[in-house]
Amino acid sequence: MLQMPPAAPGMQEEDIDTPALVIDLDAFESNLDAMAALLAPTGAKLRAHAKTHKSPIIAKLQIARGAIGNCVQKVTEAEVLAWGGVSNILVSNEVVGAAKLARLCALSRIAQVSVCADDEGQVAAIEAAAADAGIRMTVLVEIDVGASRCGVAPGPEAVALATRIAESRHLIFGGLQAYHGSAQHKRTPGERRTLIGGAVEASRRTVEQLRQRGLDCPIVGGAGTGTFPFESTSGVYTEMQAGSYVFMDADYARNLDEAGAPVSTFQHALFVLSSVMSATRPGIAVLDAGHKAVAVDSGLPTVWQRPDLRYVSASDEHGKLDVASETAAPKVGEKLRLVPGHCDPTVDKFDWYVGVRKGRVECLWPVAARGGVS
Amino acid sequence: MLQMPPAAPGMQEEDIDTPALVIDLDAFESNLDAMAALLAPTGAKLRAHAKTHKSPIIAKLQIARGAIGNCVQKVTEAEVLAWGGVSNILVSNEVVGAAKLARLCALSRIAQVSVCADDEGQVAAIEAAAADAGIRMTVLVEIDVGASRCGVAPGPEAVALATRIAESRHLIFGGLQAYHGSAQHKRTPGERRTLIGGAVEASRRTVEQLRQRGLDCPIVGGAGTGTFPFESTSGVYTEMQAGSYVFMDADYARNLDEAGAPVSTFQHALFVLSSVMSATRPGIAVLDAGHKAVAVDSGLPTVWQRPDLRYVSASDEHGKLDVASETAAPKVGEKLRLVPGHCDPTVDKFDWYVGVRKGRVECLWPVAARGGVS
Repeated sequence: MLQMPPAAPGMQEEDIDTPALVIDLDAFESNLDAMAALLAPTGAKLRAHAKTHKSPIIAKLQIARGAIGNCVQKVTEAEVLAWGGVSNILVSNEVVGAAKLARLCALSRIAQVSVCADDEGQVAAIEAAAADAGIRMTVLVEIDVGASRCGVAPGPEAVALATRIAESRHLIFGGLQAYHGSAQHKRTPGERRTLIGGAVEASRRTVEQLRQRGLDCPIVGGAGTGTFPFESTSGVYTEMQAGSYVFMDADYARNLDEAGAPVSTFQHALFVLSSVMSATRPGIAVLDAGHKAVAVDSGLPTVWQRPDLRYVSASDEHGKLDVASETAAPKVGEKLRLVPGHCDPTVDKFDWYVGVRKGRVECLWPVAARGGVS
Repeated sequence: MLQMPPAAPGMQEEDIDTPALVIDLDAFESNLDAMAALLAPTGAKLRAHAKTHKSPIIAKLQIARGAIGNCVQKVTEAEVLAWGGVSNILVSNEVVGAAKLARLCALSRIAQVSVCADDEGQVAAIEAAAADAGIRMTVLVEIDVGASRCGVAPGPEAVALATRIAESRHLIFGGLQAYHGSAQHKRTPGERRTLIGGAVEASRRTVEQLRQRGLDCPIVGGAGTGTFPFESTSGVYTEMQAGSYVFMDADYARNLDEAGAPVSTFQHALFVLSSVMSATRPGIAVLDAGHKAVAVDSGLPTVWQRPDLRYVSASDEHGKLDVASETAAPKVGEKLRLVPGHCDPTVDKFDWYVGVRKGRVECLWPVAARGGVS
């Protein structure tokens, strides 16, 4: 069952039912513009990651500002984008299982779809699915540039898999997927630069070896909100897969810039609006948003513009606040904006975005691929 | 948008699309029976917590085995149970906000509904909503018996609030809500017994003071899967609010019994079925279930009946396995059952339960109140 929307256009923010997933539209649009402006001089393209927002509406706002399309992690997300009119979608991930591969191939009738592989058996499975569907599927080879998760080793192993793909009449070799996930949240720019420097060199070397083998490499894709300044100016990476920049979470806001200050390129645009539901003892207030309403995998949320309030523990349906000053203690019923520790899994807990501008509800957007784990 | 079901009745378990939320129906029914048998001689009633399963189907299976009804944490959950035919529902939590209180009062036309309060202003708000709806709402006073979250102090403060409720012509004083959440996962029975001993004494004293004030206390509710043996035999608590017992998660399985062995009253009945999606290096396999598919707030999942495999890290869409022996290393495409660290928030990530018996899909049940945060 879908949840009922917690608000209606025209309402004031303080009348939104809680917990609710709120987008500050001014901050959100400023983030879209900032990314477009930063990438314009680099020549690198934005293939914005839709795993963050799971919404074809937001995907199309990204494309309207210059993104060449989107990437996703799951076939369900690709379906929801394609059904919503997004025409260029990369599954930046391995897809395993005949049923899912058949769904992906079916989708390529209405959108330009591509997928990653890091295993010869999987290339054969994609080939069989494409042959069965009567289409040609574009496949990128995922290389491990330091995250030690998925991906074949850069160099000869990647070239061998790319050759296997290129030689199939049901497949097209699309390029390299070279995302360095664990570099994104290294706190200093020096750490991030060093790790991405290694990823760039591994990718450059692999592209060169592909060329020697006679294989063109149209795409080198990767980068996230934490590191895209390095990949986008590398001369090797062609597509930036940043996602979180649209919303900015508390964890990304802990990354530091060259001056040692928190990175301020993007603004917090995503909030979980929450109400105080209990306040029976001094120094503590209890919110109606626990970890079923705000993800805690990358740290607890912070309270927006209230340095006197600290979210100190989350249970399923309750969040406990430390209240520094009793004179400004929040009352039962008072609503507070939380900045999620991690935006992607927080978004995935809700059916609706409530778009707010200057305190007024402007729009409701479905989190269309919410729960799309497959 | 609802997700498509990942299976169909009659399928074999290995053909279920992943990640999927799987109930082992034999283990699940055994858990229902075990709880009924344990409570029968105590005189305490089961008011099973539906925050765990969010399903009127499972609620009615609990009621068929003797539960007097259910409790929930959120109005949305109460609605979904009532609309699904559950007739006795306690919101074992504070409900704040006029819109939510109006929904709760509306519900009392089709079910026996009650709610908790720990604040005089909130009692007035419930009273106003009940008057407006033309119904009488039953209100329990939540007392803090050690969890230091919601609840007024036991004793005179609780009696004062109960008196305020009892004196309203729109409200009925229903009893005490006395749940000790932080006692549930203390590992030794001695620790759990001591904490619940304190909760029992605080409740007993408050019931006695209510009686002196001329107030009958029909319900003393509380207890969870970790402690119900103590509350149910206390002679004070009347309603047990255990929820997790139906599924048993990895965290509850770390509680110890009197002999120092893991508590074995209930069996693991809930799993996230996951596929190996990448295995490019020795000693590591990557699953398609990360923390968007299995909750990690109470620890990482374990791999069912595979002591040689250890789930060591979760990112949004990936789970990394340490593989102890290369000879039995799982292959790409192989499916494994994960035992969630915490069942409640894991259930909340899925739209469908897949009920499996002896390897065959027997039923699909919607997680009807999935996402019901309000």
